Amino acid sequence: MKKAEDFSEWYNEIVERANLTDKRYPVKGMNVWTPYGWKIMQAIDQHIRREFDATGHQEVCFPLLIPEDQFAKEKEHIKGFDAEVFWVTHAGLNPLDVRLLLRPTSETAMYPVFALWVRSHADLPLKTYQIVNTFRYETKQTRAFIRVREIHFFESHTCHADFDDAERQVNEDFAILSRLAEELCIPYGLFKRTEWDKFPGAFYTVGVDTLFPSGKSLQLGSIHEYKENFSKPYDIKYEDEKGEHKYVHQTTFGMSERLVGAVVAIHGDDKGLVLPPAVATIQAVIIPVLSKGETEKVSKAARDIFEELKCAGVKVHIDERDLRPGAKYYDWELKGVPLRLELGMKDIAKGKVTFVRRDTGGKSLHDRSRICAEAKDMLEKIQTEMWTRAKKDMSDNTITVNSLENLPEKLLRMGWCGDEKCGRSIEERTGRNILGTPIVEEHFEGKCVVCNRPTSSPVYIARAM
Amino acid sequence: MKKAEDFSEWYNEIVERANLTDKRYPVKGMNVWTPYGWKIMQAIDQHIRREFDATGHQEVCFPLLIPEDQFAKEKEHIKGFDAEVFWVTHAGLNPLDVRLLLRPTSETAMYPVFALWVRSHADLPLKTYQIVNTFRYETKQTRAFIRVREIHFFESHTCHADFDDAERQVNEDFAILSRLAEELCIPYGLFKRTEWDKFPGAFYTVGVDTLFPSGKSLQLGSIHEYKENFSKPYDIKYEDEKGEHKYVHQTTFGMSERLVGAVVAIHGDDKGLVLPPAVATIQAVIIPVLSKGETEKVSKAARDIFEELKCAGVKVHIDERDLRPGAKYYDWELKGVPLRLELGMKDIAKGKVTFVRRDTGGKSLHDRSRICAEAKDMLEKIQTEMWTRAKKDMSDNTITVNSLENLPEKLLRMGWCGDEKCGRSIEERTGRNILGTPIVEEHFEGKCVVCNRPTSSPVYIARAM
Repeated sequence: MKKAEDFSEWYNEIVERANLTDKRYPVKGMNVWTPYGWKIMQAIDQHIRREFDATGHQEVCFPLLIPEDQFAKEKEHIKGFDAEVFWVTHAGLNPLDVRLLLRPTSETAMYPVFALWVRSHADLPLKTYQIVNTFRYETKQTRAFIRVREIHFFESHTCHADFDDAERQVNEDFAILSRLAEELCIPYGLFKRTEWDKFPGAFYTVGVDTLFPSGKSLQLGSIHEYKENFSKPYDIKYEDEKGEHKYVHQTTFGMSERLVGAVVAIHGDDKGLVLPPAVATIQAVIIPVLSKGETEKVSKAARDIFEELKCAGVKVHIDERDLRPGAKYYDWELKGVPLRLELGMKDIAKGKVTFVRRDTGGKSLHDRSRICAEAKDMLEKIQTEMWTRAKKDMSDNTITVNSLENLPEKLLRMGWCGDEKCGRSIEERTGRNILGTPIVEEHFEGKCVVCNRPTSSPVYIARAM
Repeated sequence: MKKAEDFSEWYNEIVERANLTDKRYPVKGMNVWTPYGWKIMQAIDQHIRREFDATGHQEVCFPLLIPEDQFAKEKEHIKGFDAEVFWVTHAGLNPLDVRLLLRPTSETAMYPVFALWVRSHADLPLKTYQIVNTFRYETKQTRAFIRVREIHFFESHTCHADFDDAERQVNEDFAILSRLAEELCIPYGLFKRTEWDKFPGAFYTVGVDTLFPSGKSLQLGSIHEYKENFSKPYDIKYEDEKGEHKYVHQTTFGMSERLVGAVVAIHGDDKGLVLPPAVATIQAVIIPVLSKGETEKVSKAARDIFEELKCAGVKVHIDERDLRPGAKYYDWELKGVPLRLELGMKDIAKGKVTFVRRDTGGKSLHDRSRICAEAKDMLEKIQTEMWTRAKKDMSDNTITVNSLENLPEKLLRMGWCGDEKCGRSIEERTGRNILGTPIVEEHFEGKCVVCNRPTSSPVYIARAM
């Protein structure tokens, strides 16, 4: 299956062939994390832990089950989720007094407890995060990593003394996100969602959206400013320096296993996955190319390189299976290993090693004596170039338009006066979603594509994945 | 509250005061992992990952929800769990066609998929594990870490060509367990459970039991040999070298957050937790003891030590809060930090640092110039001595008895003929549980405490925690 011809089919096939997930579990949309897929997810989780720990967040783990009465406290929130939660109604052979739901996200699990944790200004800011499984009853077609019913995700939840401090947190989240995106080589836009599309209960929502090669957008996560919308119903108050009791301001930031889906979709090609070195669980694979009579010599040389690279901190694997080199190349290309080292007698005699890049297919000869430095340099180069290319692709596929006629399948920038009526008209007439107005200010002079009123604020729309 | 006077109350109080868990979540038996408790659990999880990875197990993550029809395939298994699972019956506003249960353990989630993964002898052994949340509807009184309804636990699941290879796996599990127990300084016995107490569906079950200072036993986990009991109903077959199709033999090994409970219960004292250095998230805390006029000098000296220890790989913390040293000592004793370094002007002048051990309270003076080596040696000494003491305590509290009269509250060893009738009689007359016959063979010559028949096999009984 060709990526350029049928992106959707290509994606489904590639996650299966690379054995990233097993979709044959007998509940729709609940897939098995295979060893290879789980390792990549865990590498991403480790980046997230490092980022949150370094910014003073503390990892916690709240219960999965939320009592219905706690869930119902914030009215907008329950309205937004009512149709998509799983309900536990029985335990053992008996019905429960209070129904429990499987968390779709953890506001309503955490905030009754935050009300006990926060007492005074000295407890603020309270910065927590957790990495857990969440559940949504998706009624649309499911797709591995992208639209599933059991979702692996991280969520940070913070409490602040006032709106300004909460805004500082939102900016810190932007910085965390930008470092994570660079590791994964996933470009993204930050868009303030429209009022009718924001998170149920939020004051405002910033969507984190990336663009797929098919021209469709995928929401990777979101950052929310809640103001006092949750702290009031959940009674999360603190005593300030003057002895006054005030409601805290809250924010959240969450992203899911869609990050794995985005890595597959954005970087993969017709040969399989292409993993950025920073998340690859194997960064370099050594393939000894054995020639008759010299088998032992080549094997030894390959093992020596393996040991050296391992000591130097490269995640390296040596493929000593009894297979033809071509079959091995095929396998590791499918798995997306960034760098392949081919080692045959000819190269050994010349004191050289052949490098083959997964991302470009480029081959090059390198000095055996400098193998560690050369491999590390090459991995860094691959990482940088993948990031640059991905950003360029997204930017090339972002186009400013002046009307709603003949729209290409891309990320589209256009004028919008800001009125809900015009906004809904854009969505209806195009069949696409408004992602929102850009968070990073952009110079724009134009007219609303619906009512023609002049506006200096653009809006982005795309067809959602 | 004194540990020796009311163990149960002491335990409940200490986990709360040390802020290991928050039991105020509005669902009974579902507690919040606080940052401190979660860090300790994660340190244990990391030990487990290292052990399983080093023995060729692969980490996976299976869905939480299990369809009722898959769950019902192994008849004994469902009988054993029927009364203690949580049922998801609705999604959104609609009832589900097939009810889903929250995994109490993952046999019935994994084995339908294992049937797809295992094809030929080349796929064997299949060695997997996962670290997940599981659920049991406990009807007994709940207790933090020890009896909860959402349980953090690991479970390994393996498939083998034959019974002998499965037995080799059981022995590998024993070895993994022994290394883990040494890290946590938790002594244990391995007991083959009676036929009426084995895991539902198992061929045999080995219980891993420890002994609390109160004389009660706690099951920490179990290792099961399933033989073909699950592979037949789930149709997990492989083609052997001769082309014949055979059912795999299976084993599992699982342990839970009870490990955290056992660390608290076994090592803690009236001042709080006492953590073994191998699982302490802070191994050494530095307390600058400031004297008037010399504040800056002491602070600097303390920070220098902090940096040196950190570089040497010690998990070190410096407590620079504006509190009296006594208040700090109290805090870190409650938290169980293994080693306290007190640093005042007097010691600085002499080129010394005072060490205070959390486990014994012992004080000693050490050369500042050798601080890293001295601290590491001391942590190792604490680790070794905690392990030795804990093993001695368990062994001192294990007693051989000849009758069922006037039994002390300890782990009791006695003769049993092996008949179920006599076994059940022992349990009824003592109100205690038979843990089973020891896995490590013991020399024993005695008589069954019920029927007086001579027997060379002892049985162990205890009151369960």
